[in-house]
Amino acid sequence: MKIAVLPGDGIGPEIVAQAVKVLHALNLDLTLEEAPIGGAGYEAAGDPLPEATLQLAKEADAVLLGAVGDWKYDSLPRDKRPERGLLRIRKELNLFANLRPALLYPELAAASTLKPEVVSGLDIMIVRELTGDIYFGQPRGISTLENGEREGINTMRYSESEIRRIGRVAFDIAMKRNKKVCSVDKANVLETTELWRQVMIELAKDYPEVELSHMYVDNAAMQLIRAPKQFDVMVTGNIFGDILSDEASMLTGSIGMLPSASLDANNKGMYEPSHGSAPDIAGKNIANPLATILSVAMMLRYTFNDEVSAVRVENAVKKALAQGYRTADIYTEGSQKVSCSDMGDAVVAAL
Amino acid sequence: MKIAVLPGDGIGPEIVAQAVKVLHALNLDLTLEEAPIGGAGYEAAGDPLPEATLQLAKEADAVLLGAVGDWKYDSLPRDKRPERGLLRIRKELNLFANLRPALLYPELAAASTLKPEVVSGLDIMIVRELTGDIYFGQPRGISTLENGEREGINTMRYSESEIRRIGRVAFDIAMKRNKKVCSVDKANVLETTELWRQVMIELAKDYPEVELSHMYVDNAAMQLIRAPKQFDVMVTGNIFGDILSDEASMLTGSIGMLPSASLDANNKGMYEPSHGSAPDIAGKNIANPLATILSVAMMLRYTFNDEVSAVRVENAVKKALAQGYRTADIYTEGSQKVSCSDMGDAVVAAL
Ligand SMILES: CC(C)[C@H](C(=O)O)[C@@H](O)C(=O)O
Ligand SMILES: CC(C)[C@H](C(=O)O)[C@@H](O)C(=O)O
Repeated sequence: MKIAVLPGDGIGPEIVAQAVKVLHALNLDLTLEEAPIGGAGYEAAGDPLPEATLQLAKEADAVLLGAVGDWKYDSLPRDKRPERGLLRIRKELNLFANLRPALLYPELAAASTLKPEVVSGLDIMIVRELTGDIYFGQPRGISTLENGEREGINTMRYSESEIRRIGRVAFDIAMKRNKKVCSVDKANVLETTELWRQVMIELAKDYPEVELSHMYVDNAAMQLIRAPKQFDVMVTGNIFGDILSDEASMLTGSIGMLPSASLDANNKGMYEPSHGSAPDIAGKNIANPLATILSVAMMLRYTFNDEVSAVRVENAVKKALAQGYRTADIYTEGSQKVSCSDMGDAVVAAL
Repeated sequence: MKIAVLPGDGIGPEIVAQAVKVLHALNLDLTLEEAPIGGAGYEAAGDPLPEATLQLAKEADAVLLGAVGDWKYDSLPRDKRPERGLLRIRKELNLFANLRPALLYPELAAASTLKPEVVSGLDIMIVRELTGDIYFGQPRGISTLENGEREGINTMRYSESEIRRIGRVAFDIAMKRNKKVCSVDKANVLETTELWRQVMIELAKDYPEVELSHMYVDNAAMQLIRAPKQFDVMVTGNIFGDILSDEASMLTGSIGMLPSASLDANNKGMYEPSHGSAPDIAGKNIANPLATILSVAMMLRYTFNDEVSAVRVENAVKKALAQGYRTADIYTEGSQKVSCSDMGDAVVAAL
């Protein structure tokens, strides 16, 4: 089995190095091959997704990504910017299912800005559609109207089959969890999401054990703050999922802990931390590598179907936390502040 | 001066009755005229925005709205549903500027699910564009593709002049507050909001004293939870504003306290509570009328330019709170639980 390793920008290389260390320590039969993406891709080949990187990612069984983006690329033309590399690889590999868990580690409960009783035990799985919606819909662009002023347009667009395949992912995951799916839309205003709701209702018939509910996106943004533990699996489109998954991850107060998976129809996947490239702390060996290490656990679970190794990695992370090791972002008095590479070592030791 | 009073559905009539009581108690030279909207409009005239209601609203100097919506209308065709009345009146009256304050009352700090130190003193003004964006953009609808499957589409669309006029509202308000505007977009993905960002940057030149910042909508959803007090005025488009303003209002824990204003270019406005019609508690005289009463204060301030009366109403609300009166939604041990009409009386007495 082959893993494409794409460290990317900012803290990407240092956190990916720790995840690679963990992969090696597992002693599985895996080949790793590295390639540049994002700003690093632009530096190396003038393209945020160099052709060779895309080829490698296509051939590989799974992709491990660090993060992309750095302010220094802000003035590049749109299609050279790091984010473009990310959007293109998602689309090229057909990674339509983005799984973003929002999980609160008991040891880190104090890091949340919410009251402990509101978030303790929080465990939500957000299933976000990742290759459709207003992110990719045509027509799009900025043009000049007859009266001389500019106008911007983008198109939200979903077909039934796109909705059904992401719905299935959500229902399947719910079957392995608490059997509750909350589908988030804006069906009272947007026809696209009216169709979304209809398809979810149809699909629910195949999953009689799962309780399906619907929520408007504005209400979902409120309910995540009011009573987040009401949610088990939340499924929604690309743009609403972008917003709500970030909101949900911040409920935990420790976004440095949250992994993500982006899967195609055959469980090939790209795995990356939910957080960004944090260029301000890059190269200082102080970033938190745990989200990336936990992304490896998701890779083992979803792509390699190796639940045993996945749980081994997750338990090793829990053990490192229980031993009191903390990177700066999750440090609290009484615990032991460690560097990015120290944390990687602690997880390896705990394996 | 004439005010169109549109109680609407659910708790609308009972909360509006309290606000009307307050208006009368102010002894200003005002004429009030009532008309149905939403489900009530549908019952009365088969239309969520009956022609006579629209005419009245057009003639009036300001509109006081309760709330619209009730589950019992869920099965009506889209253009008969209560929300349509709301969307149409916004569009017909050109109410492009939606102001939604997220203000934490010190007496109610405990109601928030966030830690007191994170939200105490919270005072954000969200300025949401209300007559453009994907809410109204054409083309839209559900159609059948060649392969037989259905597809939904909606169009996000903003012209320069639409962006500029809402931007101006935000900058003008910031000048009367802490002189900080945060413009929220998704300029890394959506061209429409790339134009949005450009126009905001151009506009900022007219306001050298105001500090303009930009934030991606996903990050804004996070920052509202991480450190909400960093914001003064937040300006954004219709759909992002829908989501973020609801999120922000929930930070206070007492959405029953939050008013809103929707203004046209001449400060004619529609004023309504930020919360919904709560059909589950309708007719029980237990709803919180304070958001509606505070909407009257906004009306006095923005449409009638009567800051003195606006502050009188706001102080009367504060006094009623200080005296310990609480409706059920904001009740905590040690305070005095009162009904909707009792609370109206308490505010009138405090005037
Ligand atoms: C960087 C950006 C294009 C991306 C997105 O909007 O999808 C990011 O916010 C994410 O959620 O992975
Ligand atoms: C009821 C609905 C159409 C409306 C909106 O989305 O604008 C509401 O959520 C609001 O924020 O006033």
